[in-house]
Amino acid sequence: MTRTVLESKSKTVVIGFDEPFCVIGERINPTGRKKLAAELELGDFTTVEKDALEQVACGATVLDINSGAVFSNKMAEDPRYADNNFVEPPLMRDLITRVQAITDVPLCIDSSVPAALEAGLAACEGRPLLNSVTGEEERLERVLPLVKKYNVPVVAISNDDTGISEDPDVRFAVAKKIVERAADFGIPAHDIVVDPLVMPVGAMASAGRQVFTLVNRLRTELGVNTTCGASNISFGLPNRHGVNAAFLPMAIGAGMTSAIMNPVRSQEMEAIRAANLLMNHDDNAMDWIKLSKVLEAMKEGASFAEASAAAAAATRGGRRRAR
Amino acid sequence: MTRTVLESKSKTVVIGFDEPFCVIGERINPTGRKKLAAELELGDFTTVEKDALEQVACGATVLDINSGAVFSNKMAEDPRYADNNFVEPPLMRDLITRVQAITDVPLCIDSSVPAALEAGLAACEGRPLLNSVTGEEERLERVLPLVKKYNVPVVAISNDDTGISEDPDVRFAVAKKIVERAADFGIPAHDIVVDPLVMPVGAMASAGRQVFTLVNRLRTELGVNTTCGASNISFGLPNRHGVNAAFLPMAIGAGMTSAIMNPVRSQEMEAIRAANLLMNHDDNAMDWIKLSKVLEAMKEGASFAEASAAAAAATRGGRRRAR
Repeated sequence: MTRTVLESKSKTVVIGFDEPFCVIGERINPTGRKKLAAELELGDFTTVEKDALEQVACGATVLDINSGAVFSNKMAEDPRYADNNFVEPPLMRDLITRVQAITDVPLCIDSSVPAALEAGLAACEGRPLLNSVTGEEERLERVLPLVKKYNVPVVAISNDDTGISEDPDVRFAVAKKIVERAADFGIPAHDIVVDPLVMPVGAMASAGRQVFTLVNRLRTELGVNTTCGASNISFGLPNRHGVNAAFLPMAIGAGMTSAIMNPVRSQEMEAIRAANLLMNHDDNAMDWIKLSKVLEAMKEGASFAEASAAAAAATRGGRRRAR
Repeated sequence: MTRTVLESKSKTVVIGFDEPFCVIGERINPTGRKKLAAELELGDFTTVEKDALEQVACGATVLDINSGAVFSNKMAEDPRYADNNFVEPPLMRDLITRVQAITDVPLCIDSSVPAALEAGLAACEGRPLLNSVTGEEERLERVLPLVKKYNVPVVAISNDDTGISEDPDVRFAVAKKIVERAADFGIPAHDIVVDPLVMPVGAMASAGRQVFTLVNRLRTELGVNTTCGASNISFGLPNRHGVNAAFLPMAIGAGMTSAIMNPVRSQEMEAIRAANLLMNHDDNAMDWIKLSKVLEAMKEGASFAEASAAAAAATRGGRRRAR
């Protein structure tokens, strides 16, 4: 049974075939979040810290830390800020340091800039997940040595130098190539978490079935764990959370073991908790019962994040009293 | 590709591997509904008619008609009313006549009393689904000749004279036996819709995985359509609709093609519509977009049944104007 072990300083999280679905919180990502990018440019980590705490309270057991910021004002002062290779490494280090100081979950170091991945690896305590390597030759040659050197697991995205193929067989072949190349570096398959690439079902009607089939093949033929940018499935459609909330259980049923997603959404998290229960990955329905209480509390007007934080605080208080 | 064809006087519904999930409305069932049984005892079909219209508006494409009533007052006057063989056949005929008069969807004739099944077959227009045969010898010998005589499809429930087995392999074997016995009568596999029996996941932690595996085997090894009493999965748990709403997409992903369920619940119907979209059984996401509008209308306070009925009426009006 494939197990990908992640660690923070104090916590271990296993992504695996026999484990509850691993929710990797995606919110700490300045890409497309202008307000967050502007805050970071000013050295303000308020939103990052709030997002970290909220996501963990809502059920993320890993936090993705993406350093893809554009510093528009600084760019005018100093042209080096136009270069991600200049911006991202120190930003990644700062993001990780801040988040690590206030949470205890393992992190996922997310950047397209290899130097930022390396800065993240140096700053990170425990055993983070590295995000990502692709099938592109240059990327393989830059990232796999880092994976080996730091002995960390890595997300493998199934595109290559020819881009993203619409043919799922090609995407499977790219994943297979990455697993084989990793093996040449002495990196075992259980440390590769493949992202088979989820297309929007509104644009490609076969996108759902494609990814369910692919996930199943990745699991049975390559023996690897899987992840995805889950919300991509609903891009362009109305009532996106409803599509995501059906997609996640179906993906879990097909064998998907993690997703990079927004955990501060009750509809998706309810679907995942129910799927864990239905996959027999929730002992005595404990997590389901806990979530049901949070959903009850929301009926009185609390947000999911607030109700989740209150429930988590009550549990901690209860445990403390019990000692 | 297996297709089970059902017909009303004017409509055809296909349960099939390449069709949207078939929702069989379960509400016309006096079992456990004391108020409804009391109404029926007085010859009052108000609730039945309301339930029929609401279920169709909400998305049921087949209506289950169950005649399992207990007539407590009449029993005191005439002891024959203690006998279901006496009560159910005329009641089944009346229920079908009333529902057929105001709706145009195919029906599912549901009784444990063979004489009620026969009365239903005589009263029903088109090609109803017969519910049900089991693997019990007496039941096989009584029901399969009816299935053959009326040339209708039948629900096959995978229990037998030894009861309901907790072992999914035994339940598969019972289903196989029924399919083989039906073949002896000249009834093809595509006219058998197997109910693999859904156990409550709160009582049996493996119930979800069991049924997903079973459905997949029934589909690939026996080539049959499947159905289930979907809400049984969540029996005894809090927030049951959340469990049902994850179970249905997972079952659909595993190959389930219909369910006997309450369609007057937005959470479950949203999950099914999203699953249809993700299985590529919703051309241009038309059904999804329609449902999204209904869910929007609910935000202004309408119930799901009201908002669905209003949307259906608007569509009919629009079509009429367009002619």
